Amino acid sequence: MTAIATDQAPRRRGRPGNDLEAVLRAAVEVFNERGYDGASMEILSRRLGIAKSAIYHHVSGKEELLRMALDRALDGWSEAAQRAQELDAPAIERLELLVRGTVAVLEDRLPYVTLLLRVRGNTDIERAALARRRSFDKLVAALVEEAERDGDVRADVDPKVTARLMFGMINSIVEWYRPGSRPDGADPLADMVCAIAFDGLRVRR
Amino acid sequence: MTAIATDQAPRRRGRPGNDLEAVLRAAVEVFNERGYDGASMEILSRRLGIAKSAIYHHVSGKEELLRMALDRALDGWSEAAQRAQELDAPAIERLELLVRGTVAVLEDRLPYVTLLLRVRGNTDIERAALARRRSFDKLVAALVEEAERDGDVRADVDPKVTARLMFGMINSIVEWYRPGSRPDGADPLADMVCAIAFDGLRVRR
Repeated sequence: MTAIATDQAPRRRGRPGNDLEAVLRAAVEVFNERGYDGASMEILSRRLGIAKSAIYHHVSGKEELLRMALDRALDGWSEAAQRAQELDAPAIERLELLVRGTVAVLEDRLPYVTLLLRVRGNTDIERAALARRRSFDKLVAALVEEAERDGDVRADVDPKVTARLMFGMINSIVEWYRPGSRPDGADPLADMVCAIAFDGLRVRR
Repeated sequence: MTAIATDQAPRRRGRPGNDLEAVLRAAVEVFNERGYDGASMEILSRRLGIAKSAIYHHVSGKEELLRMALDRALDGWSEAAQRAQELDAPAIERLELLVRGTVAVLEDRLPYVTLLLRVRGNTDIERAALARRRSFDKLVAALVEEAERDGDVRADVDPKVTARLMFGMINSIVEWYRPGSRPDGADPLADMVCAIAFDGLRVRR
């Protein structure tokens, strides 16, 4: 039976918990619990139950793990931005697709997004991550502005502030969201974010 | 000229920077910069340029300063909640008054709200603050629910999640807001929050 299970499961390098994905997952856990400064390869090796040398087989150190973890969140946002930009539709629909994509990234990569949102720019890696965040913010503000010019978004809101408020709402989800099963393809949380941000709470009469 | 100025200004106890208000203001600065654990009465006394004994003249120690600082934010929210509950108007209008009140507290007491939002519940004082936050969240959720029953808020949003998203948006303002002059009585930021949350970005046709 064991042989069959091994054949069916994708082959992993080394012992369980010894592959790069498991190392990265544990590193993000440790960073989120103790802060980057409070984390060490020693703590990580204890958490994984493997020798430090086994970790160094995959990565050069703590810095590389931080960069990879932040990229995991930022790449998710970039892919969502890419999909939104490629959509052949008015700016407001591209904006909504981007909002839904960002919520989905948060749900799927919660610990990585949590880590990203705590970054304050103390190291080169953190500053590079903040620069990628800022270019994302700019894209969102540009979409809001374009939708305003199209007459699809109300003209009395400032695009930059709107982008900040909307993503402030989305990012605050990391404070309380706990991953759960959700019906395939449906995303009630993204629906609710879009209901509030695009259509507002007030019932129209 | 000095005598006239002294007569006009409200009398302060001791040297400038030596009154309780100045001590509290400096303490919040230090807490926000270094974290509560990284702050000490020693650092605070250097920041104020006064002896530690002069600080102990006002407060019993670091814990009391933390409690006072958190209360400064929480009392602002409580007062906003009180005003909203006393308003003789439908739930949706009480909710909007509460949202505006909360944004105003954030603008007026930014460092205190920033400190409150970072609290994780590591001490009794922090846990008491979190309990007050939770009762505030409950009040907001109850108002959303009542407005839904009135038919004023769309029925497809969960009141609890809505309350979290709305205040996630408001609280995210601490990340980028810098106090500036604003025209008396007007609050463009509160207007924008209400425009998004209550009426939505999308233009109706």
